[in-house]
Amino acid sequence: MQQGPPPDRYGMSPPPSATGSRPAHHNLPPVSSRPPPSPTTRDGADPTLLPLFRAVDKDGTGQLSERELSAALVNGDWTAFDPHTVRMMIRMFDSDRSGTIGFEEFCGLWSFLASWRTLFDRFDMDKSGNISLDEFNNALVAFRYRLSPRFVELLFRTYDKRGDGVMSFDLFVQACISLKRMTDVFKKYDDDRDGYITLSFEDFLTEILRQLK
Amino acid sequence: MQQGPPPDRYGMSPPPSATGSRPAHHNLPPVSSRPPPSPTTRDGADPTLLPLFRAVDKDGTGQLSERELSAALVNGDWTAFDPHTVRMMIRMFDSDRSGTIGFEEFCGLWSFLASWRTLFDRFDMDKSGNISLDEFNNALVAFRYRLSPRFVELLFRTYDKRGDGVMSFDLFVQACISLKRMTDVFKKYDDDRDGYITLSFEDFLTEILRQLK
Repeated sequence: MQQGPPPDRYGMSPPPSATGSRPAHHNLPPVSSRPPPSPTTRDGADPTLLPLFRAVDKDGTGQLSERELSAALVNGDWTAFDPHTVRMMIRMFDSDRSGTIGFEEFCGLWSFLASWRTLFDRFDMDKSGNISLDEFNNALVAFRYRLSPRFVELLFRTYDKRGDGVMSFDLFVQACISLKRMTDVFKKYDDDRDGYITLSFEDFLTEILRQLK
Repeated sequence: MQQGPPPDRYGMSPPPSATGSRPAHHNLPPVSSRPPPSPTTRDGADPTLLPLFRAVDKDGTGQLSERELSAALVNGDWTAFDPHTVRMMIRMFDSDRSGTIGFEEFCGLWSFLASWRTLFDRFDMDKSGNISLDEFNNALVAFRYRLSPRFVELLFRTYDKRGDGVMSFDLFVQACISLKRMTDVFKKYDDDRDGYITLSFEDFLTEILRQLK
């Protein structure tokens, strides 16, 4: 499996080593615990997925609408995906900007979700089918985020949209991708990598609006 | 009608006067064009709204659920309110944090929406029942925001959720309240009112997460 670069070590102490931007970690998590890379490279179509694609493409147009994809994407307990996760997936994999997902795009999306599923199962230590706050914290540590317990809890509560104290697969993916996106935005402004950024009024508003989309 | 303080003049040129935090404006918009204040003071119950409240309270519990409120709140063309606007209203007026809206809370909410409706009608210059980008820009100028055309357009497109190039009443309210909230957050950090703020990684993430709620 291809791996993107891990997120930088933003957050609380210990601070990154002063000897280089990539300090040596003697206790790095195994590479296979890292999140799947964002869809920058196309793997092309996987013909074995064609029957599945056809089954999801109810109206036979060769393109999956948001509604068709929503009906197909379910969690381990067969609950429907949160609508925001579905829209996030479409935005990420709709490379021709048609607003729908063609077969090749679907193959990328499916393989991406399969990678996340493997990670989800790994961090679901008690095999409950959901991620608890502790399990979420372990995942973020494995992804090399250094975040305060208070912030991790805020993040968890924000994406625990059903308010039941645990995170289903769809919300886990949504939370991790959102965190990655917010981190990337921060890095864009933090040229000197000191963990602080300066923003004008419109920069601040613009970046928030982009995250809302 | 009680008026809250207008938003500060953040944004593009001209910059605020150096002589004081509240420069003299010889062409201030009339007070009645300013947005209604957030629910900081309670006006108490308005008995004339009781029949309406009872009609909305389908299950007769004396408390309006999100579902009951959603069914009652409609735009001028009878389309349902965007779910995010409904949740925003509940969060703003649910003063006892019950997750539902009691009668007194409903009175506050109703009067707040009535004030916004008056504003909406004023800025809907062509009486189309919707706010165009130009009309939205006029409203923001009247509210004393100084924003670049590019940012106003981004804000408009973000809240034009139905993608039809105009803003219905619910989305206009949502956009204006969100802008106010984001501005308040910015002000909180901008102690010296120079239009720039410095944020740590977790501050940045935390403020974005709060806006997502």
